Amino acid sequence: MTSDALREQVLAANLALPAYGLVTLTWGNASGIDRERGLIAIKPSGVSYDGMTAEDMVLVDLDGHVVEGDRRPSTDTPSHVALYRAFEEIGGVVHTHSTFATAWAQAQREIPLLGTTHADLSPHPIPLTRALTEAEVQEDYEGATGELMVEAIAEHGPLELPCVLVRGHAPFCWARTAAAAVEIAVTLEEVARMALLSTQLDPHVPALDPVLREKHYQRKHGPHAYYGQS
Amino acid sequence: MTSDALREQVLAANLALPAYGLVTLTWGNASGIDRERGLIAIKPSGVSYDGMTAEDMVLVDLDGHVVEGDRRPSTDTPSHVALYRAFEEIGGVVHTHSTFATAWAQAQREIPLLGTTHADLSPHPIPLTRALTEAEVQEDYEGATGELMVEAIAEHGPLELPCVLVRGHAPFCWARTAAAAVEIAVTLEEVARMALLSTQLDPHVPALDPVLREKHYQRKHGPHAYYGQS
Amino acid sequence: MTSDALREQVLAANLALPAYGLVTLTWGNASGIDRERGLIAIKPSGVSYDGMTAEDMVLVDLDGHVVEGDRRPSTDTPSHVALYRAFEEIGGVVHTHSTFATAWAQAQREIPLLGTTHADLSPHPIPLTRALTEAEVQEDYEGATGELMVEAIAEHGPLELPCVLVRGHAPFCWARTAAAAVEIAVTLEEVARMALLSTQLDPHVPALDPVLREKHYQRKHGPHAYYGQS
Amino acid sequence: MTSDALREQVLAANLALPAYGLVTLTWGNASGIDRERGLIAIKPSGVSYDGMTAEDMVLVDLDGHVVEGDRRPSTDTPSHVALYRAFEEIGGVVHTHSTFATAWAQAQREIPLLGTTHADLSPHPIPLTRALTEAEVQEDYEGATGELMVEAIAEHGPLELPCVLVRGHAPFCWARTAAAAVEIAVTLEEVARMALLSTQLDPHVPALDPVLREKHYQRKHGPHAYYGQS
Repeated sequence: MTSDALREQVLAANLALPAYGLVTLTWGNASGIDRERGLIAIKPSGVSYDGMTAEDMVLVDLDGHVVEGDRRPSTDTPSHVALYRAFEEIGGVVHTHSTFATAWAQAQREIPLLGTTHADLSPHPIPLTRALTEAEVQEDYEGATGELMVEAIAEHGPLELPCVLVRGHAPFCWARTAAAAVEIAVTLEEVARMALLSTQLDPHVPALDPVLREKHYQRKHGPHAYYGQS
Repeated sequence: MTSDALREQVLAANLALPAYGLVTLTWGNASGIDRERGLIAIKPSGVSYDGMTAEDMVLVDLDGHVVEGDRRPSTDTPSHVALYRAFEEIGGVVHTHSTFATAWAQAQREIPLLGTTHADLSPHPIPLTRALTEAEVQEDYEGATGELMVEAIAEHGPLELPCVLVRGHAPFCWARTAAAAVEIAVTLEEVARMALLSTQLDPHVPALDPVLREKHYQRKHGPHAYYGQS
Repeated sequence: MTSDALREQVLAANLALPAYGLVTLTWGNASGIDRERGLIAIKPSGVSYDGMTAEDMVLVDLDGHVVEGDRRPSTDTPSHVALYRAFEEIGGVVHTHSTFATAWAQAQREIPLLGTTHADLSPHPIPLTRALTEAEVQEDYEGATGELMVEAIAEHGPLELPCVLVRGHAPFCWARTAAAAVEIAVTLEEVARMALLSTQLDPHVPALDPVLREKHYQRKHGPHAYYGQS
Repeated sequence: MTSDALREQVLAANLALPAYGLVTLTWGNASGIDRERGLIAIKPSGVSYDGMTAEDMVLVDLDGHVVEGDRRPSTDTPSHVALYRAFEEIGGVVHTHSTFATAWAQAQREIPLLGTTHADLSPHPIPLTRALTEAEVQEDYEGATGELMVEAIAEHGPLELPCVLVRGHAPFCWARTAAAAVEIAVTLEEVARMALLSTQLDPHVPALDPVLREKHYQRKHGPHAYYGQS
């Protein structure tokens, strides 16, 4: 893949965030990686989505160093890098402060698995990272945030758990491509919203029947999946 | 009705779902039936609404077998088929994961009849299907889901109860035509939203006065209805 | 005013309802009166807002009899008529099932006066009509609904109380013109939404300080009002 | 700066309020100041945003007297003036009745600092003004409201606390420019919404870890800030 093609894909993923109502003002960022060249393209820090172009995307390597681009990359770049380093399977990462997912992150609660909409996304509750220590915040805040996300999903891996809530902060999402990571972010926000509303209707709402949970996850993502066009 | 006309009607019903904000990404599906020929047109599985055409609609028979079309039909096809087989009166079926109706389904609560907006739709609470057994999920999940919906509305019939909540999942809606089933889905979502908000204002909110409930339902749907243009 | 001018004004008020997000499908209706001729123009019953024209508006007299128009007037016409007969000051009436105002009506709670946004609309809680008796529902449901609204606001009059919640049903709003009644409906919905959210933050939220309530109402509507352009 | 340039900037800030969904009908107002000339441009009172032009903006001096303009300035002008007089650092003020911030103001609760989205705005809870006395309301309501806002943020200053909730009323926001004050208003509304939702998930939700709070505020606004393009 050329650098231009990578930048175009990542630009498109970034522009999808305001189009889907997932970000406010300049918040949020999307990135994508070219695994062969070890190059990541990411949104520049604090820049408006209006009028953003492919040239604005910043290229960094897997140490987070800027390789190409006139702008400063997103402050969250070390968090993205940590995810790409830990998980070979992922090709795109999206970070938003989408309203309902962020509400769960601020409440410091994982999102319980209450319905088939959630099971179509993941067969697990959406986990919450552990609290950062004061040293972690002071020394390498964004890198440590990435490490905590890796830790939170290590047991199940990044395909069964395509997103996480950073405690007190907001969600990160990932997938095989930047475009697919945007769809994870859209789905997570809707799952978070439905779970909040169901919790209002019954604070002790039971989790979805595990048989139904496995059925939905497997029919969409399992070895014998029959959802979608093959 | 020609197959083309059936496909066009069902395409229009499917495209109405994102236009009314009832679906996210590729979620949801609408179908319609030509009773004379015993042919059902339905949305293909996991396909985007953007750029969808009438040719994308899949034709299946009342056994759920594909008769025409290059694509795989919605995974929910057996649920639609079960409804068409059980109820001669219905000509269209719509399935969405609309936010508020799904929140009730996940909370595993029927929607109580709290106001005249609900009574204009149905004179009954919107029921919840019973839990599927493990065997039902494993053997014929989507067909069994259809059977449970039939069971849940059998007492009152599909015209007095034009929708149901599938426990832990989401709503299904139906009517004499696919277009009318879309209007049921729009109405159900608003009824579900209002009921959730009223429940927040009073967790023990009383049901609507039965006299008022009957008055509203009958003035719109009864033998002496006087709502609308005759 | 010519009948055409009256129809045009009432058409514009009706079309404003979906534009402001106050109505779903064909729900809701607006009317206006020409006091000199004693003629009311009102939306036809159960007709879509899309493509609605001035010719679709139905003219009725103050007994509710159709004077001009090919269509059946709104089923709620007797409720509008009761308001026009009781209150000479009003020139337009709007009925919607707007989400948050309807949620309060269904919860059978008046809307408490919690902030200056409400005080800018009215110096009183938004009242709830009493329950209809079975006889009232059976004999002249829509007319009786009108009479109950008149009863609910009689003490303060239709200018200090420009709207009411019909118990278990939804709001009605009025003003000197149909266009102004639409603005009351927009304001009521926002007041209802804010009051619900404040109630979630504190179920025992106190009413607004009466001194502040009077200040806001008087600076906008009192004899020495200084809000707006004189 | 010419008076025309000032009016254009303030017009743009006012027009941004409905574009961001922060105001209903004619509610809300934005102003900006030319410090060299001591001139403030502000929205006229009770005027629609549709068709509003730069000429409609009213110029007042730091005593609140109209210097140029055919219209009556916003009734809230004395509140804006009090802020400009107290804080040399600010160049623009925005007042809205945005839904969620107003819900907190009506509930008479400060907005607790629950997440990094809030910490990016301010390192403090968003304070609530004290109650006005009856004498303050009667004598100079809008001026006294301004003084109470100054009192509520005096300890931390207008840059660390770029907004406040007026008890029972709604928010005011400010920044170095009118355009930046609009961004504060957008951010505050989202922070207020997220905090309300988190509070629903846990009525006793803990405040954000102070280490994380300082990190986020300082990386964006501190002397060694590294967020955004320098």
